[in-house]
Amino acid sequence: MKRAERVAAIIKILSETPNKSYSLNYFCKLFGAAKSSISEDLQTARQTLQSVNLGIIQTTSGAGGGVKYIPYISDQDCALLQEELCEKLRDSSRILGGGFLYTSDIMFDSNVARQVATVFARKFQDYKAEYVATIETKGIPIATMTAHMLNVPMIVIRRESKISEGSTLSINYFSGSSDRVQKMSVSKRAVVPGSKVLIIDDFMRAGGSVKGIKDILGEFDMEIVGTGIVIASTEPDKKKIQDYCTLLYLGKVDENTKEIEVYSNCQIF
Amino acid sequence: MKRAERVAAIIKILSETPNKSYSLNYFCKLFGAAKSSISEDLQTARQTLQSVNLGIIQTTSGAGGGVKYIPYISDQDCALLQEELCEKLRDSSRILGGGFLYTSDIMFDSNVARQVATVFARKFQDYKAEYVATIETKGIPIATMTAHMLNVPMIVIRRESKISEGSTLSINYFSGSSDRVQKMSVSKRAVVPGSKVLIIDDFMRAGGSVKGIKDILGEFDMEIVGTGIVIASTEPDKKKIQDYCTLLYLGKVDENTKEIEVYSNCQIF
Repeated sequence: MKRAERVAAIIKILSETPNKSYSLNYFCKLFGAAKSSISEDLQTARQTLQSVNLGIIQTTSGAGGGVKYIPYISDQDCALLQEELCEKLRDSSRILGGGFLYTSDIMFDSNVARQVATVFARKFQDYKAEYVATIETKGIPIATMTAHMLNVPMIVIRRESKISEGSTLSINYFSGSSDRVQKMSVSKRAVVPGSKVLIIDDFMRAGGSVKGIKDILGEFDMEIVGTGIVIASTEPDKKKIQDYCTLLYLGKVDENTKEIEVYSNCQIF
Repeated sequence: MKRAERVAAIIKILSETPNKSYSLNYFCKLFGAAKSSISEDLQTARQTLQSVNLGIIQTTSGAGGGVKYIPYISDQDCALLQEELCEKLRDSSRILGGGFLYTSDIMFDSNVARQVATVFARKFQDYKAEYVATIETKGIPIATMTAHMLNVPMIVIRRESKISEGSTLSINYFSGSSDRVQKMSVSKRAVVPGSKVLIIDDFMRAGGSVKGIKDILGEFDMEIVGTGIVIASTEPDKKKIQDYCTLLYLGKVDENTKEIEVYSNCQIF
């Protein structure tokens, strides 16, 4: 195999499995090449990705060392993504009444999910999360992609406990969005006491759901290291969760003038 | 930019957005290179991926032509994935009673989701699906990844109609797994009459859910072009859906001997 081919194959393999560490030996065996050649290939691969802003190849030396791909989105591309989403959300036909917007097409768009997940992956890369947690349903695609980018398992908290979840722990919590007490439950098999968790969700109003996720995982001594939200409403100002990172803000939704106030969080990183 | 770097960048860009068509001009502009150089780069990129079995770069010429990446998994890698999943599923601690197995850790593992989705993407690549549809909750990660691989939007059918879904159409169907009548609903905004849909789900027993998805989407004249299932139980033999493709078969789950009969579908392609 020629150099150009090896470099390309290395980038394909690494970027397909972000944050997964490969030994240099893995590539030596795969290509039947010497360590020195692979080292040079990695150098080229790193420069290539950097020059087109498509991610970082990180090499750690030593016994447990290896090479891995870290997803990256530039400030500029992030701002473009945010503006594109704002544009879509400003469509007045999304207004459902009660201040709700139809967003399922956006949340269930795998391309949006991948890009938003890249933002969260960049933001939370060094938070040492061992799990990504979300609550069903609309946050699942973005949580899936974020878990993929960070190379950690996902915990999906259910609204109702299902027989297929085995033994579950349930809590009741107050949801401001539905203005009533709701239930969430998590499978005991899904949790690992003492581990660090990143919460990802599609929407936050008062923060009741996220607070609920924090509480239910807290029952198992899991530590929340960060919270990533796609859209946070500006109202109420006082939320049940202070420490969260949102991609977009949703302001006033005026059912009469059909105006939707939505804007980017420019301080995301 | 040198050739090796251009080839690597092309592979990264194409493989990050499978089944999305790029014009040659896009790369000419990005790299400031001539069309003839880019053509040669694409040739190298194609050979590279082929030689390591990591996907197909397809070029179509003419006015609407372009270049795109098509995900691929070899027969051998597919068999390895199937055997690995069988191995995991044979763990007797998964037995929940009533013939149910705990599978959430597998279905919510983004790495499994990506690989299984690659199998479905290869299987259904030429079925011209315009949507991937699933029913909440456990099939969503794999459906998300499959939609990503095929570059189509996803429709998530809900168990209950939610205010955030806008106007919905609901049906009642008989679920063999829960032995009762259940409800499913789909947002009218999510469907496009006359379009072709690929159904993806995590588990099928008698096929009641899949039949329900077919019926509810049929109400909007959507045509089901294929059905991909991760695990199909061998019982009952007579299912409500004949035409489906499963990755794995689940046979007898013996609660006394703790034996779980699970095996690969060797005829998947």
